[in-house]
Amino acid sequence: MKAEIISIGTELLLGDILDTNSRYLAKKLSALGIDLYFQNTVGDNPKRLSFLLKQALRRSDIVITTGGLGPTVDDITLETIAAVSRRRLTFKNKILSGIKKHFKKRKLTMPEINKRQAYIPQGATALENKNGTAPAIVLAVKGKLLVSLPGPPFELIPLFEEKVIPIFKKRFNLKEIILSRTLKITGLSESAVAEKITDLLKLKPPLTLGIYAHMAEVDLKITAKAKNKKSALKKITKIEKTILGRLGKYIFGKDSETLEACAGKLLRSSKKTVAVAESCTGGLISNRITDVPGSSRYFPLAIIAYSNREKTKLLGIPDELIKKYGAVSKKIASLMAENIRKIASSDIGLGVTGIAGPSGNTSAKKVGLVYIALSFKEKTIVKEFRFLGERKEIKFKTSSAALDMVRRHLLNSKIKVQK
Amino acid sequence: MKAEIISIGTELLLGDILDTNSRYLAKKLSALGIDLYFQNTVGDNPKRLSFLLKQALRRSDIVITTGGLGPTVDDITLETIAAVSRRRLTFKNKILSGIKKHFKKRKLTMPEINKRQAYIPQGATALENKNGTAPAIVLAVKGKLLVSLPGPPFELIPLFEEKVIPIFKKRFNLKEIILSRTLKITGLSESAVAEKITDLLKLKPPLTLGIYAHMAEVDLKITAKAKNKKSALKKITKIEKTILGRLGKYIFGKDSETLEACAGKLLRSSKKTVAVAESCTGGLISNRITDVPGSSRYFPLAIIAYSNREKTKLLGIPDELIKKYGAVSKKIASLMAENIRKIASSDIGLGVTGIAGPSGNTSAKKVGLVYIALSFKEKTIVKEFRFLGERKEIKFKTSSAALDMVRRHLLNSKIKVQK
Repeated sequence: MKAEIISIGTELLLGDILDTNSRYLAKKLSALGIDLYFQNTVGDNPKRLSFLLKQALRRSDIVITTGGLGPTVDDITLETIAAVSRRRLTFKNKILSGIKKHFKKRKLTMPEINKRQAYIPQGATALENKNGTAPAIVLAVKGKLLVSLPGPPFELIPLFEEKVIPIFKKRFNLKEIILSRTLKITGLSESAVAEKITDLLKLKPPLTLGIYAHMAEVDLKITAKAKNKKSALKKITKIEKTILGRLGKYIFGKDSETLEACAGKLLRSSKKTVAVAESCTGGLISNRITDVPGSSRYFPLAIIAYSNREKTKLLGIPDELIKKYGAVSKKIASLMAENIRKIASSDIGLGVTGIAGPSGNTSAKKVGLVYIALSFKEKTIVKEFRFLGERKEIKFKTSSAALDMVRRHLLNSKIKVQK
Repeated sequence: MKAEIISIGTELLLGDILDTNSRYLAKKLSALGIDLYFQNTVGDNPKRLSFLLKQALRRSDIVITTGGLGPTVDDITLETIAAVSRRRLTFKNKILSGIKKHFKKRKLTMPEINKRQAYIPQGATALENKNGTAPAIVLAVKGKLLVSLPGPPFELIPLFEEKVIPIFKKRFNLKEIILSRTLKITGLSESAVAEKITDLLKLKPPLTLGIYAHMAEVDLKITAKAKNKKSALKKITKIEKTILGRLGKYIFGKDSETLEACAGKLLRSSKKTVAVAESCTGGLISNRITDVPGSSRYFPLAIIAYSNREKTKLLGIPDELIKKYGAVSKKIASLMAENIRKIASSDIGLGVTGIAGPSGNTSAKKVGLVYIALSFKEKTIVKEFRFLGERKEIKFKTSSAALDMVRRHLLNSKIKVQK
């Protein structure tokens, strides 16, 4: 089964918009075991689109178009499909009432211009678009399947997942499935991770392993091809165990799990709370913690003491000590963690101080120098880091290291309790 | 002048990588006044690449390929170009020494495999790649110009800017230039902005206006084509004045300026400080403020009082009042703003409380209900908002509204002082 994508829109060829749909569709097609040989982008031009449609219908079994389904005269996808497939555009009352409903939900009346969207090529099946007015369609043309989807990703994605995939599965009797699992790592560089799994990175289909580096995070993506879900899962689980054996606690989560969600899950399950005293991260740690729904259960308070005066006044750190050790020091980080824990009566206190840059470089203390302290009843742990990058990158790497210290502390406590 | 892009790499067609090069090149070509009619993506397959190259050389004047210039057998771009253009691959000693130098800089010896990268089609001009070993080339084929660039953006971008653009300018005698300016708006929806400038959105080249909506922000992009920079700027400035007249203070900045940077600039110039008491935004407002270098000059302190207990203890808000009005209320937002201002001895205090969701819905107070208060010496202002979206979206929209209140307050004070 060979598929081809045609992305339609002059704004794409002007570089005003980044085409993320093609990548999304490419991933999905690959997971379905459908080969994608060509992707093309073309402007809102009937002649050139018509050329591409004809070419694609000759050389591919499935042709997916994205974009050009809006209500304005610039939107020429369905007209051009009708011309290429020699069908008429026919008015569908059902589509029109769907569009009207969409406007009504937002307490608006439908502009006359949107009527145009109720015309689709004869013989096409309309797919209900919950998130917009554009009419998505599926049309069989000389044994080939043509699918037209709207450009906005929040319309395209649900349409593809809920409507198009079931049609593909049925029509093409897709039996082989592809499953993936991503293991997420923090605290190691990409090359340090790669070194530990060099042999696994060379695996060939049906079981492969890919490595992808993000800011403060390395992802390992396991992909298995098999006749059914069970057998794919078996393959994945086996290699996952091997990786876990080599990377252990560096792996914080799976698939779409975030570090903050994983730390949050541990806080909830161990019924502990964390309070944060931030300086150089300026609120980023708290922001990431509170991105997780339900975080109010384990996060009572943060103080962002950006100035030394507030470190003294709000966090009770003696001015003499700041003068003696400097605000960016192990000592001050420890006191920040200990004091915020007491102020909030929380189980864990985090204290973070560092130089995010671009200014603040001194001969002794360079931009990227960060101290993170974690305080709990029995002890306070402090770590020194030297992060590279510009301001936002240093802030982010610091926040990840801090969240990871919370995660590891809770993992260790758990093991001790179990013993 | 018609250009075409061919992006090469099986990883693109598997969706493992997002193609950002095409968008970058599209923008640059548009700015040079070169029309881009087609962009194609193809895997590491000589037959299909060869088909695309021939087609592109027929219909376009400039063909730009990206990717497939690495040292491994998968990398087939130059081989295929040689076959299509009927040239031999010839060894270039100068390229080899460049590659060797690249390894030496990193204290590595060149693997034997990289020798392959020193072979380029006869007659091609090699472009020096400072950031990698891939040999970029330019080749004239039957009056058309073929440019091959490496896939990694940090190699492609400097090569295109420093080497390719000057070649294009000289060869195609490009005189017309395209300039853009983006006006950034917050506090109005896309349709509300569009309504005020319907006539301007219909403008045709050489002067056009585009509208793009982001989260809590609408961008208006003015683009002018002219014979020189001066005349393009003149056109842009004229329409900019018209837009300013209609949208006034809704416009917070230009081009790459962020709302937090614009608010920060006003704080600095007016020598004022702001302290923040956050609840539902959980640190996001402080994080955005401190993303701006130098923010320590005007941002001393934030308290993220996520629990009611901390609102009482740290922000001094009487428990009875929280019980009487509810934590999400005008009264509590005002007190948060007033008290944080006093605690930090700052000029401005911001207090933010709301329901970010997904839980917390009650019949009286729904997810998305937010109160933002701004307190200064003379007065406290409170605003009620009802934001739509999921948790992170509500947090972000709230943070933008809060930063915008600071910005507008400082603008108003400025006007008063000038009077």
